This record gives sequence, structure tokens and C-alpha cells, in this order.
Amino acid sequence: METNRPTNQYLEDILEKEFPCLDHGFVRTIDYMGDESSITQAARVSYGTGTKSVSEDKNLIRYLLRHQHTTPFEMVEIKFHMKMPIFVARQFIRHRMASVNEYSARYSILDKEFYIPKVEDIQPQATDNKQGRSGELTHAEALKVQDLLMTDALNAYKGYELLLNENNLHDSYPGIARELARMNLTLGYYTQWYWKIDGNNLLKMLALRTDSHAQKEIRVYADVMENILSGWMPNVYEAYNDYMKCSFTMSNQMLTLLHDTIDIKAIQEVDYKKYNVTKREYNDLIGAIFLGE
Amino acid sequence: METNRPTNQYLEDILEKEFPCLDHGFVRTIDYMGDESSITQAARVSYGTGTKSVSEDKNLIRYLLRHQHTTPFEMVEIKFHMKMPIFVARQFIRHRMASVNEYSARYSILDKEFYIPKVEDIQPQATDNKQGRSGELTHAEALKVQDLLMTDALNAYKGYELLLNENNLHDSYPGIARELARMNLTLGYYTQWYWKIDGNNLLKMLALRTDSHAQKEIRVYADVMENILSGWMPNVYEAYNDYMKCSFTMSNQMLTLLHDTIDIKAIQEVDYKKYNVTKREYNDLIGAIFLGE
Amino acid sequence: METNRPTNQYLEDILEKEFPCLDHGFVRTIDYMGDESSITQAARVSYGTGTKSVSEDKNLIRYLLRHQHTTPFEMVEIKFHMKMPIFVARQFIRHRMASVNEYSARYSILDKEFYIPKVEDIQPQATDNKQGRSGELTHAEALKVQDLLMTDALNAYKGYELLLNENNLHDSYPGIARELARMNLTLGYYTQWYWKIDGNNLLKMLALRTDSHAQKEIRVYADVMENILSGWMPNVYEAYNDYMKCSFTMSNQMLTLLHDTIDIKAIQEVDYKKYNVTKREYNDLIGAIFLGE
Amino acid sequence: METNRPTNQYLEDILEKEFPCLDHGFVRTIDYMGDESSITQAARVSYGTGTKSVSEDKNLIRYLLRHQHTTPFEMVEIKFHMKMPIFVARQFIRHRMASVNEYSARYSILDKEFYIPKVEDIQPQATDNKQGRSGELTHAEALKVQDLLMTDALNAYKGYELLLNENNLHDSYPGIARELARMNLTLGYYTQWYWKIDGNNLLKMLALRTDSHAQKEIRVYADVMENILSGWMPNVYEAYNDYMKCSFTMSNQMLTLLHDTIDIKAIQEVDYKKYNVTKREYNDLIGAIFLGE
Repeated sequence: METNRPTNQYLEDILEKEFPCLDHGFVRTIDYMGDESSITQAARVSYGTGTKSVSEDKNLIRYLLRHQHTTPFEMVEIKFHMKMPIFVARQFIRHRMASVNEYSARYSILDKEFYIPKVEDIQPQATDNKQGRSGELTHAEALKVQDLLMTDALNAYKGYELLLNENNLHDSYPGIARELARMNLTLGYYTQWYWKIDGNNLLKMLALRTDSHAQKEIRVYADVMENILSGWMPNVYEAYNDYMKCSFTMSNQMLTLLHDTIDIKAIQEVDYKKYNVTKREYNDLIGAIFLGE
Repeated sequence: METNRPTNQYLEDILEKEFPCLDHGFVRTIDYMGDESSITQAARVSYGTGTKSVSEDKNLIRYLLRHQHTTPFEMVEIKFHMKMPIFVARQFIRHRMASVNEYSARYSILDKEFYIPKVEDIQPQATDNKQGRSGELTHAEALKVQDLLMTDALNAYKGYELLLNENNLHDSYPGIARELARMNLTLGYYTQWYWKIDGNNLLKMLALRTDSHAQKEIRVYADVMENILSGWMPNVYEAYNDYMKCSFTMSNQMLTLLHDTIDIKAIQEVDYKKYNVTKREYNDLIGAIFLGE
Repeated sequence: METNRPTNQYLEDILEKEFPCLDHGFVRTIDYMGDESSITQAARVSYGTGTKSVSEDKNLIRYLLRHQHTTPFEMVEIKFHMKMPIFVARQFIRHRMASVNEYSARYSILDKEFYIPKVEDIQPQATDNKQGRSGELTHAEALKVQDLLMTDALNAYKGYELLLNENNLHDSYPGIARELARMNLTLGYYTQWYWKIDGNNLLKMLALRTDSHAQKEIRVYADVMENILSGWMPNVYEAYNDYMKCSFTMSNQMLTLLHDTIDIKAIQEVDYKKYNVTKREYNDLIGAIFLGE
Repeated sequence: METNRPTNQYLEDILEKEFPCLDHGFVRTIDYMGDESSITQAARVSYGTGTKSVSEDKNLIRYLLRHQHTTPFEMVEIKFHMKMPIFVARQFIRHRMASVNEYSARYSILDKEFYIPKVEDIQPQATDNKQGRSGELTHAEALKVQDLLMTDALNAYKGYELLLNENNLHDSYPGIARELARMNLTLGYYTQWYWKIDGNNLLKMLALRTDSHAQKEIRVYADVMENILSGWMPNVYEAYNDYMKCSFTMSNQMLTLLHDTIDIKAIQEVDYKKYNVTKREYNDLIGAIFLGE
């Protein structure tokens, strides 16, 4: 179809395409609104000036993100069709500034699809991080875990089918309502939904869920989305990477520590352009450490 | 403790009290802000006038709710500690304008507590309502369902314990991370959280979740909260009842149907005061049907 | 440009077109996402069923809106470029679920454009409605009002220019910061912004701001947007009209009044199909009045 | 009154007290919910553990804020009665996660109160910062600015009164609706509202609006609120100061620049405890610069 709207070739090319996640899940972009020009267009209405060249767009995007002027990033939207285990859906839903329509297990019967982690993803409880995993199991141990998860998931589904007794195959079971029977399923079962979010809230979600402390299973989805972001809006992705994901916030105390440890002359002699640091950023950096910004 | 804040005797009396819900759940009010006077206070700043008598407060609250002037209802807050099955928590979390901190099964081990519906709550899938239940089972059938749910829930927990292998009791299992092991549990297991919401969003949630089409298991919680609302702010509760819960919205077409069916004289002769309908409401009613409001 | 996204011919045709509002304002659609099929697509993921025919789409939309299943309406977005007097912008901004980037009078100088109401829009304070206007002025009186508004607005701008002293033309004024000088302008001056909202929140805003109790000057904008809605999603518009805008909510008390006044037989003999009332709606109507829904 | 809720002595002591802002404005705390213990209480439900000692509360709060675990901060609320010039209100309202009820100039007549900046606050447009002010005027110049602002504000109010013609004193003016007449007033006129916000959104607003780049006139209000925060929740204030307000975010590129400029040995020999930097923070700092966190 023809459109006069801003169009993004990368997203057009991957529209409807399923990017697989975990053993049965996926992320599929089904619609979007706008691209980088939508962000700079909205930002510029504040300044009351016209359109600028592409190189200036890139700088404006970096400036906006660095200074947390986040409202222009709300001017773009992306909508995904996603399929993921229920325990992953329970983490995604905490991002409240998204729109969601989920498959209803009150109306419909859930498919017999559940998540079994790969051997290499089955790890012991981390000892240094109370909410993570680390270390390794032997291959045999991991197989044993997979086996138990598989057996119990199948057993749960068998119970689900008995409770539903959809086709009156199970003489001895009466057939109960779907909204009740579903409670016999485990958190590893797959659900699906349409999930729409604006650019600003997408970046916040990605920074949290691609982090190494996020649970591996949600990270898989966030990584796919982050990759889609990088194809859709490369300058936004780069700025997000530099100022959010790969940045580090120095506390007041850390800045004092750096102040007392670093030789100001060494910093002052740096060829900052070599590092793709702007003059303004360079001055801010020196100011933060040596003038107590 | 002494406070100069608006204080509500009903809530003070039940603070910290657990109202049981389902077999192992509860709702417990742990904090609140404001009462009916907070709503009228905020509404009156719009009119630039001072405090009025209690009877006028009641009328103002009814006026605000009837005309969907909902922002003053945001001026009160209530915070609950709740314990409920995961499938119920998944319904509550859809109300995005609440603040939530949930028990984390990445950090901690979930208790061996799961929901088993009472005999009378176990019903077949409704035939007229695709997302509900209706009809009856024999006592024996219901017991059989309970038995299956119980057996499978216990089996899931046994698997959970083997996977965790907390105290190295299970030689043959290696012990895996909590964030993974939890996926073996079913949606009937209990979780808990702190859940805070303002008055406006509380009313919206209650209207949806105390409705006869809401799933019984969430209705149990909503009913308890509605009862707390009625003790906390009786006039708000009454107005919510009259204008939201027990109201009925006539569509454009229904109004035409009524117009053609009703004798206007019969309506005009009604002693509306007898029905606790205000003059303004009475005129609006006649206008809606006979003048095509 | 080619796109594989849902495309709406009506919006494509009016994209970028300025619809004039008041004397210097406008509403201009600059981007959108989705159409009616996006709403039904999201709704159907809940039911786990496939795409249906157009006539069923229409019924589904009506069903969703009547039952306040509003989340699928969040799946479409529209973005406007708007120019309006500051006092109108102050009313729009209360709709918090919109994304906004406004012209900044800290950065840039506001144009010499202000709102002067037309003769027929200048009315006395209403006596029956404390926040509205009604009645008429003589033509001469209205001209006098226009004259005063014009004189004072021009005087305010003259002061603004003196305070800014942009080109050092005013020897005796030093030139002060824009963020300060702007305070000399009146609430009738025009500002502009990009304003993005989803379908659900658009409907709520329109129902409030096209109402006869809304201030005339914001209604002009809401009417233009409502008209755009009707071209974009005619079935949504129709459902919004029937179930929101032209509906009437009967309170608990009003239903009792109707119960005692209406002859149930008269209602039961109605040919409801003639009124485009569905069987389900008809039963609900009877139930609400005679069975105390 | 007696209450069993968490009570905060500082807020109790200042409840209802007006803290003056600018020439006629104020901030007045009128209600609140919770204190620091409410934040840690909610955070701990995630960990499934009991109450801890005060010193651990402080550390937990610092940990939460540093790691942007912001949801527990939503568990406290504060409500202010505020009076401020309209152009300041227009900045506050951009913080959408607050509840607001504002004085309505459709219903009521605005008072004859407008903002005139002090001599020292009247400055030229900044040359280095397109949205700020810097430099100085002579005393005579500033007085001239004040004089113009005063004259124009009084003139606007005179027009407002003529347009309203409240008591029929102005034979030649007919008296028009308040919602229209208000447009003759300038952005410097005072409005007032009740404004409620949770702890998380309060911190975000304060970090933006106490910043040196925020307009002086809103900073005055934010500074008062920040001071109230410090009395209410001193550990939250301290953490906000250290990790938000006085922190500095090093971009990916800045970290590389530091890596190439700093001697790792110098950092490794630092007595970090002297700086009130925790061991974990110290390791993170080294990791960020030298291991490319």
C-alpha cells in the first residue's frame, strides 16, 4: 500500500517476521509509527525551528537522550506480537506504560507448549547474587532437571485435559470451566499477546531487561527487541547504548574519590575528540569531577 | 500516635486486620491517606469556595461521580497487603494505575500453599458466556476435581523442592536457581504483594471486578475491598453503587426505543423525590428520553 | 512510499492538511498507526480465534465499547500538530495519557497571534451553569468587548517586545530573558504542539470535550478531531456515538423510577430490531429495569 | 487525632504551614502517607524477609535508589496546596504522574495577584544557554522592567474587570462569561491547586526542577519541596542527593577516556571507605572504567 507517513525500510522488511525466542516463543513486529525524524520533529517544535540535516538529527538525538529530554521519544510507537512463558509475561507486564491484549485462558484452551531450558541455561542459584544463577551443572545433572520439568509439565497438562474433558473422552471427569482448569498449568506454559509501547518506554524497558542481572529468559526477548530497535532507529540505538546501557552513574561520593585520585592535568591534556566525546561533554566531565557539578 | 491528618475511624479500627479470601489468601489494609473530606476539599478548590456542611459534602460527591469528575477521587489513597493465587494476581496487575511490590520467586522460595476451590465453586464451562462457569456438578464429581488439583499441585511442589534441593537432601538433584525452579509451580500457588491505589482507580477496578462476569476468585477479593470502601467512605460507596455499579447505560438506540414506548405523561407525573432522584437528575432523565439529550 | 502496515485511505488523504480552528489555530494530522482492524485483531487474541468478516468486525467493535473493554482501542494511535490559545492548551493538557511536545517560550519568541472571539461567541456568564456562558449581547456590546480584548492583547505584545528588545531598537529597555518576558503575554496568545494519543484515550477526551458543557473554544478543536475519527474509523465513531456520546446512564434510582412507571408489556411487545437494538441489548435493557440488573 | 498509621513528626509539625514562594505564592503540605519505613517494607516483601534495623533501612534505601528499583518509592505519597504564577503551573503540569485539582477561572474570578520578579532575578537572555538567563542589569534597568510588568499586569486586570462587569459598575460594558474574560489576564497571574504525587515521581520532578537549568521561578517551589523531603525522609533525601542530583553519568565514551587517562593503581590503592563508598560501589566503579562494565 501507498502511504504518506514516515516509513522505515528496516521495519517494512521484517514486518510480520517471527524472530524465535526460547524453545517455542517469538517476537513479531506487526505495526509501527514513525522513525528518528519523528523524534527530532517533535523536539524541534520546542525550539520553533525548521528541519535540519541528517548529521544534526543524530546530534540532536544524542543531546536529547543524554539530558533525559525523553518526551520526544514518546512520539514513535512499535507493536509486537509476542509468545512467551507465563513467568516471562509476568515480568514484562510490570512495564505499565505499554498496551496489552493477552490470550485469555478463560475463553480459550492453552496449547500444550511449555518452556524447557537448554542444558547450558540450567544453573545453580548464584551465591553472590540472591536473585540470579551462576556456576555449572554436569550434563547428566542438567538432563535430569530437564527430565523432571518435562515430566511435571506433561503431567500438569494431562490434568488440565482431564479437568476440561473437552470431548467427553474421560468418563470419570465432569468437565469444568476453563478459567478454573487453567490453574493446573505451570508457569512454564506459553501465552501470547499484542504489546504496544512508545520509544521512551521501550528504551527504559530494554535498559532494564537486557542487563546482565535480568533473568536470562526475558533477556532473550529484550535482546531481539533491542536488535529491532537498532535496525529501526540506529542513532537512537547508539545513543541509548552510549548514554544508558553502557554508561555508568558516578555518585557524589565516587566523584570526590575520582577528584582526589585523578591528576587534573592528565584529563586536561586529553584529545577528547579522539574518543567521540563532544566539547560540551568534555567540559561537563571535568566540571563534574573537579568543580563538583 | 498523634496526627493532624484527616483520620478515618473505620480504617483505624481495621488497620492490619486480615480479611480472609479463598482458602489461604487475605486482604489487609496497611495504610491510607484521606477520607471523603479530602475529595470535596480538592473539588472545591476548583470553585474557589470554602468548606461546606456534611449534607452538602454528600451531594457534592454524588454530583462529581455522576458527572465523571473523577480527579478529586484521586486525592485519597489506600494500601493493601494481599495474598492471592497467581492467576488472580495476573488479573489484578492489569489495573495499571496501581503501585505494586510483589514477593519475588527469584529471591525467595514460595510457600507450599495453593488454591483448591470449594465444592460449590467447581462448575462446568458456561454455555451462554464463553468466559464463565455455570451449572452444577455432583458432589462426587467436585471431589474428584479437587482431588486431581490437589494431587497435581503437590506433585508440582515436590518437583520444585527437588529442583531447588535446598538442603542437599536429594542426592540425585543438583539444586538449580530459584528463578528457574519456580516454573514448575502451577498458577494456583499463592503469591503476595503490597498494592496501593487511589480512590478513582479503586472505584473503576471494583466496578469491573465485583461484576457478576468477573471470575469468582477475583470477585472474592474485590468484594472485601468494596466492603472496606463502604466503611471508609460511605457516601462515595453509595454514589459508586448508584451511578456506577447498579446503573445501566442506555445507548442512543435504547433511548429511542424508550421514547416510542413510554408515555411521557406517566413520567411527568412521577413524584421523583420519592425515588431519591434530584430535580436535576429527573430533568436530565426526561431530556434524555424525550428531547434526545 | 510503500508500506505493509495497515493503511487508512481517509487519513492518507488528509495527512498534513490543516483544519482551521478559531481565528488562527488549526489541527493537522501528521501520523497515525492502525485502523479498525488493529482493534479487532488485538481483541481477538484474547479469544484465540482468527480473522472475521467485516460485518462481524463492526459488531465486535460495538460489543467492546458497550462493555467498556477499552484496551484494544489503545492499539491505534494518532498524532496531531495543533495550534491553539494558551487557555485552550491548558485544558487539553489535563488529558494526561497523551504525549506532548510544545513550543517553548523559553527558547523562542511567541508570534503576535492571539484569539479574538467572534461576535456571536461573546456571551454573558450563564446563570444556570456556573462555568458556562449563555444569553446574547447586542452587536455593539460585542464589538466593544472585541475592541478591549484586541487593545489589551496588542498592549501586552508591545510590552513583550520592549522587554525582549531583540534588535536593540528600544534604547530605554535592556532586553530580558525570553522565559521572563513571556509572562507579559495573555492567555489568549497562541501556542502550538505535537500531541499524540491512543484510540481509547482519544474517545474519552472527545466525549468530554465535544460535550455541550465544554468551553466553546476547546469544543471547536474536539469537533474537528471527532470528524477525523469518523473518517478514520467509522464503526468506532458510530459505536462511540451510540454508547458514549449519545448514551445516558440511568442511576439505580432512575431505574426504579422507570420500573414503577413503565408498563413491562409495552416494552416486551417492542420490535427491538426496528431500533437497531440487538437481542442481547434488548434483554439487558428489560433486565435492568425490571429485574434490577 | 490518634492513628495507627506510620506517622512522621517532621511533617506533622509543618502540616498546613505555608512556605512562601516568590511574591505571592506558597507551598503547603496538607496530607501525606507513609515514611521511609513504608519504602523498605514494600521492598522487603520482594525478598520475603522481615523487618530490619534502622541502619539497614538506610542501606537498603541507598541500594534501591542506586539500582533504580523505583517502585518501592511509589509507596509513599504527599499532597501539597500550592499557589504559583500560571507560567510556573504550566511547567509543573508536565509531570503527568501527579493528581491535580486546580482553581477554575471558568467558575470563579481570579484574584488581582501577579508575579513581579525581584530586581536581582531580572536578567538578560543567556548567550550560552538558549533557554536561560544570565548577566546583570543595572538597578535602574531592572526597575524599568518591573514597572512595565506592573503596568501591563494592572492594565490586563482592569480589562478583566471591565469584561466581567461583576457589579454593573461599568455602564458601557455588558459583562461577559468568566471563561472568556480570563483570556485577558497574563501568564504572570497566580493560580492555585491541590497537587498529590508519590515518592518516586517526586524525586524525578525534583531532580529536574531543582537543576540549575530549570527556570528560577519553578526552582523556588522545587527547592521548598526538596527541603520538605529532607525533613520527611532524610535517608531518601541523602540517597537522592548522592545518586541522582549530585551524580554524573559517564557515557560509554567518557569511560574509555577515563580508562586511558587514569592510572588503575592509583584507584586500586584508594581507601574507599574514607569516601563513604561501599565495597560494592567501589568494585563497580573500577569495573566500569577498567573492565568496560
